[in-house]
Amino acid sequence: MAVPVETLSSVKCFGGEQAVLRHASETTGTDMTFSVFVPDCATDQTMPVVWYLSGLTCTHANVTEKGEFRRACAELGLIFVAPDTSPRGEGVPDDPDGAYDFGLGAGFYVDATQEPFAKNYRMWSYITQELPEIIGDCFPADMMRQSIMGHSMGGHGALTIGLRHPDRFKAVSAFAPIAAPSQVPWGHKALGGYLGEDRAAWRQHDTVALIEDGARIADLLVDQGEADNFLEDQLKPHLLAEACEKAGIALTLRMQPGYDHSYYFISTFMEDHLRWHAERLAAG
Amino acid sequence: MAVPVETLSSVKCFGGEQAVLRHASETTGTDMTFSVFVPDCATDQTMPVVWYLSGLTCTHANVTEKGEFRRACAELGLIFVAPDTSPRGEGVPDDPDGAYDFGLGAGFYVDATQEPFAKNYRMWSYITQELPEIIGDCFPADMMRQSIMGHSMGGHGALTIGLRHPDRFKAVSAFAPIAAPSQVPWGHKALGGYLGEDRAAWRQHDTVALIEDGARIADLLVDQGEADNFLEDQLKPHLLAEACEKAGIALTLRMQPGYDHSYYFISTFMEDHLRWHAERLAAG
Repeated sequence: MAVPVETLSSVKCFGGEQAVLRHASETTGTDMTFSVFVPDCATDQTMPVVWYLSGLTCTHANVTEKGEFRRACAELGLIFVAPDTSPRGEGVPDDPDGAYDFGLGAGFYVDATQEPFAKNYRMWSYITQELPEIIGDCFPADMMRQSIMGHSMGGHGALTIGLRHPDRFKAVSAFAPIAAPSQVPWGHKALGGYLGEDRAAWRQHDTVALIEDGARIADLLVDQGEADNFLEDQLKPHLLAEACEKAGIALTLRMQPGYDHSYYFISTFMEDHLRWHAERLAAG
Repeated sequence: MAVPVETLSSVKCFGGEQAVLRHASETTGTDMTFSVFVPDCATDQTMPVVWYLSGLTCTHANVTEKGEFRRACAELGLIFVAPDTSPRGEGVPDDPDGAYDFGLGAGFYVDATQEPFAKNYRMWSYITQELPEIIGDCFPADMMRQSIMGHSMGGHGALTIGLRHPDRFKAVSAFAPIAAPSQVPWGHKALGGYLGEDRAAWRQHDTVALIEDGARIADLLVDQGEADNFLEDQLKPHLLAEACEKAGIALTLRMQPGYDHSYYFISTFMEDHLRWHAERLAAG
């Protein structure tokens, strides 16, 4: 390995290996923990990589324990990577009031420019640059075939990262994403706190604004629970639908009656997303 | 409802409802919490009931969050019930040293006869009498079609309860069960502590002894990880295999290379078990 990565645990599951790993990140200046599922494969084989970005308050562990992705990943031959949602550790600044929607567990997949967050809160660069190098070095990963998905804040991350790297990611999808953070309270707080009050800087981290400004991908799969408590105030999928329609992006937006914002919702539709990714990764 | 049962949560998942419920148990003298997954069904329909008994240290929550049973239960039309592993609450006696393998989280599916445990630790009667009445009253359950499975201590519970109720349970299976508690340290401590040192009383709560004493079921599915840390000292599946062979019980014992004792192991083989149960519930 080119970088020292410590394996905290590695457990056989669905014929493959579910590992949790830790490394000293140059990007965030902290130790970072992430999980990787690698299906059983021949020693000379490589497999496509699906990135899963988690939501507010989560670590790598939530989806790893509750996401129910391994059966489909094993069948489809997909490596599944689940990073943490923020830097953590001694000296890492948090929300001054300890709120759940900013600071620890709430990195929002941006590189902060504002103090005291700019030093550690660099999740954009961590997810798009440092961690992919580790995945490519340490696992049987075909880095020419990557895709990205996420939930809530992680849906925001997956959509913005996917839109800004259309050649890297062959498929992009989300569960209940924060589609227009510039227009909702979670986004106002996070983008304001990390990037400052110049709203021009926010547009690079707002899916709807990116599409309005010309970013394009071919298609997009989004599932959204209709019983999701955050639907009206924070998620606003209709804004995404309008932007995609104007831009000619083929959005499949599935409103799911009775489903909430939890991993019970995500696990129900995880297989659909993985099959959708696998088709596009095979075609790419 | 004939009994007051409080719904603590109910969430849509795989088209059905995953609920967590609580009631004041007459059997244990405590509040008891359990979870039930009910697939989507017509209002006049009833479905078979699969009981899942959990292992040491667990509550209903472990399998509910990590068991990955809902997709198959939804497909197969199976209600899935996950009880707690012991009484809990103020005044409930625990292991004097606070050990994980006795007392809270370790009821061992017996009715204790020894003080101070006899009042509350009545998991055998709770699982075989009180909770089935609640399930029959509160859910669209076909109580003529029940089956039972469990993990580790819960595998012990499923096997002993299944063997002693061969007409009630159409299928019995286990993940890494404590197959011969009279012959292993976990069992010595639990059966001695709850039932006293008269080993004759233990035989009613020891799968191998029950089979030796004449208990019979047609067949049995057991999965056991070969990398399970408890395999040699506590689980001893070869004793079960020997007893089944002598008794003419068709045991399918699958030794799974590389798998440990965790829910990563259980979730991998859960679907196999549910399909095995569904076949027998349909035939019954």
